[in-house]
Amino acid sequence: MPATLGWTIEDWRKAYQSGATPEELIGELVASLDTTDNAWIALSDSTQLQAALFDLSGSLYKVGSDVSRLPLYGVPFAVKDNIDATGFETTAGCPAYAYTPDEDATNVARLKAAGAVLIGKTNLDQFATGLVGTRSPYGAVPNAFKPEVISGGSSSGSASVVARGLVPFALGTDTAGSGRVPAGLNNLVGLKPTRGLFSIQGVVPACRSLDCVSVFALTVNDAGLVADAMAGFDADDAFSRRAPYALPLDGPAIRRPGPVKHLGIPEHPQWFGDQQAEAAWNTALSLWREQNVELVPLDFSPMLELAALLYEGPWVAERHAAVESFMASHGNDMNPVVKSIISNATRFTATDTFRAQYRKEELQRQIDELLADVDALLVPTTPTAPTIEAVNNNPVTLNSQLGTYTNFVNLADFCALAIPAGFRDDGLPFGVTLISGAWKDTELQHLACQWLNAHPTPLGAIDKRRPEETPGAEISTPTVKVAVVGAHLSGMPLNRQLTERYAALLEQTTTSANYCLYALPNTTPPKPGLKRVATGEGRKILVEVWEMPASAFGSFVDLIPAPLGIGKVELADGRWVNGFICEGYGFEGARDVTEFGGWRAFVQGSDPA
Amino acid sequence: MPATLGWTIEDWRKAYQSGATPEELIGELVASLDTTDNAWIALSDSTQLQAALFDLSGSLYKVGSDVSRLPLYGVPFAVKDNIDATGFETTAGCPAYAYTPDEDATNVARLKAAGAVLIGKTNLDQFATGLVGTRSPYGAVPNAFKPEVISGGSSSGSASVVARGLVPFALGTDTAGSGRVPAGLNNLVGLKPTRGLFSIQGVVPACRSLDCVSVFALTVNDAGLVADAMAGFDADDAFSRRAPYALPLDGPAIRRPGPVKHLGIPEHPQWFGDQQAEAAWNTALSLWREQNVELVPLDFSPMLELAALLYEGPWVAERHAAVESFMASHGNDMNPVVKSIISNATRFTATDTFRAQYRKEELQRQIDELLADVDALLVPTTPTAPTIEAVNNNPVTLNSQLGTYTNFVNLADFCALAIPAGFRDDGLPFGVTLISGAWKDTELQHLACQWLNAHPTPLGAIDKRRPEETPGAEISTPTVKVAVVGAHLSGMPLNRQLTERYAALLEQTTTSANYCLYALPNTTPPKPGLKRVATGEGRKILVEVWEMPASAFGSFVDLIPAPLGIGKVELADGRWVNGFICEGYGFEGARDVTEFGGWRAFVQGSDPA
Repeated sequence: MPATLGWTIEDWRKAYQSGATPEELIGELVASLDTTDNAWIALSDSTQLQAALFDLSGSLYKVGSDVSRLPLYGVPFAVKDNIDATGFETTAGCPAYAYTPDEDATNVARLKAAGAVLIGKTNLDQFATGLVGTRSPYGAVPNAFKPEVISGGSSSGSASVVARGLVPFALGTDTAGSGRVPAGLNNLVGLKPTRGLFSIQGVVPACRSLDCVSVFALTVNDAGLVADAMAGFDADDAFSRRAPYALPLDGPAIRRPGPVKHLGIPEHPQWFGDQQAEAAWNTALSLWREQNVELVPLDFSPMLELAALLYEGPWVAERHAAVESFMASHGNDMNPVVKSIISNATRFTATDTFRAQYRKEELQRQIDELLADVDALLVPTTPTAPTIEAVNNNPVTLNSQLGTYTNFVNLADFCALAIPAGFRDDGLPFGVTLISGAWKDTELQHLACQWLNAHPTPLGAIDKRRPEETPGAEISTPTVKVAVVGAHLSGMPLNRQLTERYAALLEQTTTSANYCLYALPNTTPPKPGLKRVATGEGRKILVEVWEMPASAFGSFVDLIPAPLGIGKVELADGRWVNGFICEGYGFEGARDVTEFGGWRAFVQGSDPA
Repeated sequence: MPATLGWTIEDWRKAYQSGATPEELIGELVASLDTTDNAWIALSDSTQLQAALFDLSGSLYKVGSDVSRLPLYGVPFAVKDNIDATGFETTAGCPAYAYTPDEDATNVARLKAAGAVLIGKTNLDQFATGLVGTRSPYGAVPNAFKPEVISGGSSSGSASVVARGLVPFALGTDTAGSGRVPAGLNNLVGLKPTRGLFSIQGVVPACRSLDCVSVFALTVNDAGLVADAMAGFDADDAFSRRAPYALPLDGPAIRRPGPVKHLGIPEHPQWFGDQQAEAAWNTALSLWREQNVELVPLDFSPMLELAALLYEGPWVAERHAAVESFMASHGNDMNPVVKSIISNATRFTATDTFRAQYRKEELQRQIDELLADVDALLVPTTPTAPTIEAVNNNPVTLNSQLGTYTNFVNLADFCALAIPAGFRDDGLPFGVTLISGAWKDTELQHLACQWLNAHPTPLGAIDKRRPEETPGAEISTPTVKVAVVGAHLSGMPLNRQLTERYAALLEQTTTSANYCLYALPNTTPPKPGLKRVATGEGRKILVEVWEMPASAFGSFVDLIPAPLGIGKVELADGRWVNGFICEGYGFEGARDVTEFGGWRAFVQGSDPA
């Protein structure tokens, strides 16, 4: 076992800071890997590893040898074998289909540019058609907890190598749930981004209009770091999308004001007889209720109909479009279950396709309306955890059941984050998935961190404690900070102007000691003015710092009446942030209330502080 | 001839202000209409008219009898007969298909709620399948200028009744150009909105994923008024879209800074031998060049490929999806050309459909990149103006030619505005169309007004002078005004912070006389501070008022360093607008430069003014 077993990205970073080298750490890791492990389709040999480390030194050179500019410096990773990486064949789980790509997929190139080192390609359900991890000529991938149970798929190998701690992260793909199902069954974080956030250039298509590249990691922290390195528009991918500059201020994808999160859950979840999963779900729900969260049972029938539309409808023709000529010439080289599924495509006409797309739009509208009342959906990642044998005996039905809570997500244009949620009585992990509207990826990460910090399950299938999960910015769009001092403070009459703009309270603090506070005459509601003064003449005044979408800040500023305005205010710790200022003429006839130390104390009639 | 012939909406409004009543004006109008006119499929009889006028009095009652709250009070209009209106059958140009709707289409209901009075349903190419106006059992609709020439279609009747001044506006639909082609051939304004801006609920589908309701009017003013009454999200229409709160600040749909508009034109326009159209186009281009416009020849091959994809590809299956069961039972009741076109749908499989949709995405990406360099496209509305006889002899090819510059627009998710652009030597009108990215509808209206005011062609086919076209807001998203006084003035070092946020200069003016201006010490670039003072102690200071998208204003405010900020500044005419203010401590050690009357004069070393 290599020393690096179960390391997070942070562990790798610390090791390099302590003087270790990629040559020695990754060299030891690669040498330790078992080439007969079903999770791998290909592993770096020593020549490939040398080339990768040479490229890493090139990347480092490009950033002036400043390791801090390579956020994934020397971090080993694996990619599902339907994603192109130079030096490796791309098999898509079908040896007869294999080709040698000339270029890295955009995501692989971006990860390498960030310093990550690719060490192998992983097994999958052939052509990413499956949620089970058994439909591969490279063998079924066993569950990391119980080898007789499926790993889940189609990104079976990527989930397995992360769950066993061989690499801290791996790429999968996710069309119907392939990036979430194996995360749920292997106690991992599975990040399924908003469609178009990560490029799909260089990925063998499953359903090209729906495909996403996904990330498996041990922690939300790590998944977020990888996502940051991959996210962004790719002009070479016709399905790439630019993140909106502003979230719409109405409609279903809004950020709801206030600290309490509302999570929609299935009113009548389906378990297909799996009582252990049901029990684990109920336990998880009772723990979520202890958080600052309100669970809202919702009628999931539109989601289930949308899921069925993907599974039984014309979208299978996208898989056909991807492999039609190969299938015509090499049908016998395909996994028979996969071939049979894709062959169904010929049942559908163009007219069927448009009709199904109309129905999709209608269901999406219904689902958007349901989501207008919640911040996110919370679902079991899978309702079952079948054995490999059971799946072999009933390959289509059990596969379909696994996708109950994943199939609808890409058709609905949602993002999702699968996270660990404890264990079943039989020792298998149980996972839940947070789901929300497009571009709310970072908000899901916030919710997930809150959950995992409260219930820190061990990492993957290795006996290691979960580190503190520390999320980044909650709001996905650009934000600004603004210090409020008067009628906009929490509970004050104008606070609504902040919350209705989806602002979040970051902290209560004070200004530096260089300020005086005045109660301005003739203001409704009563407002103070903050006046910057020379050192020794003022004191620290209580402020709240709020964060709001930059796109909403302009309309906030627009509301502010003379003599007030927004300028820059110095905080106690020396930061300067946007904040309320007051023109000089406004202080005429104003009462100096500096001695109260803040507007709330003055208004409440407290004694001077 | 009724007195109201050729009236614009403004003419109708004035007549009512002068004491006329809807009963008398619309009564006279309806009585004058010719029931054998091919443009009409159905006209209000006296019972229907009484009911409509009764409903109008109800609408008026609902707004407290305040006529000013009904922007279309007593304005008669017509709708294409594939749009539901209670009291009329909907035929879609096919008597055997006719049904009696229970409800008005959303747009008809919204227009009635705004005071408009429906007087009839208009002829069309059957099932809106055609751009010619000849494919109808109700007869070919003649061109309003030359009866032997086609009217264009499919919204043939709606264009004809507006062009002849019978009603000031009419609704059409537009999938491949049906709202633009007949506008171009009849000297009208044809407004084809951003897809989803107007509801398609209650409209017989052509290609439901692409269909738009469109507006024919004599002037841009009128088209804009009608659009305002119809625009807005409709939860009952799965294809309705919410307008974005903010335009993206990158990508092709941006508003380019600066006053000069860049219009992309086809590098090698196709005319199919129509030299008169070509000559009219060249004349129009030479006149556009005299405006504040730069014409940029572009390679239109991706647009032409996208146009062909609509015409020859699987989207015809959308038409099939709309009428499949009717066609199976009543195929012999259909126009043979229309039936033959729709029958082509069965050639396409689901796999073909997805492949075509992928190609659409790829072409859309290419077109978006082309548009990144221009504000809008300028194209001939149609390259030809064939006779009815020529079309009858060659119904498919000539129809296809007509759509050369219209077919690609809805697939590319663009909005368009067809406008008059002079006359051909044979006396037929020539039209051009402005095209731009989604949600830029109002920017196209601005461009069109600029053009029509410079070249005021007569209205429709009636010999009446075009009134001044007065556009509304140019930027489609919410905007704010900000008065700048120093380094942000035009040509000054920080002006870029305005233009890169797509701000437009509205006016140069001054503050009220209650201000002094100071040169602030230690600022880079040098900046002034504006100080509000008591009456008699200051003077008017030169400012520029800029308008920018509200969504961009927050990031602008975020850039402003202490002691400056954004508050409210009083202008010479008494308005208070957002503007630069300065905290009191900032004036310490500052030089009073009020006597220069403005920052530019001071910086340029002018004498005190």
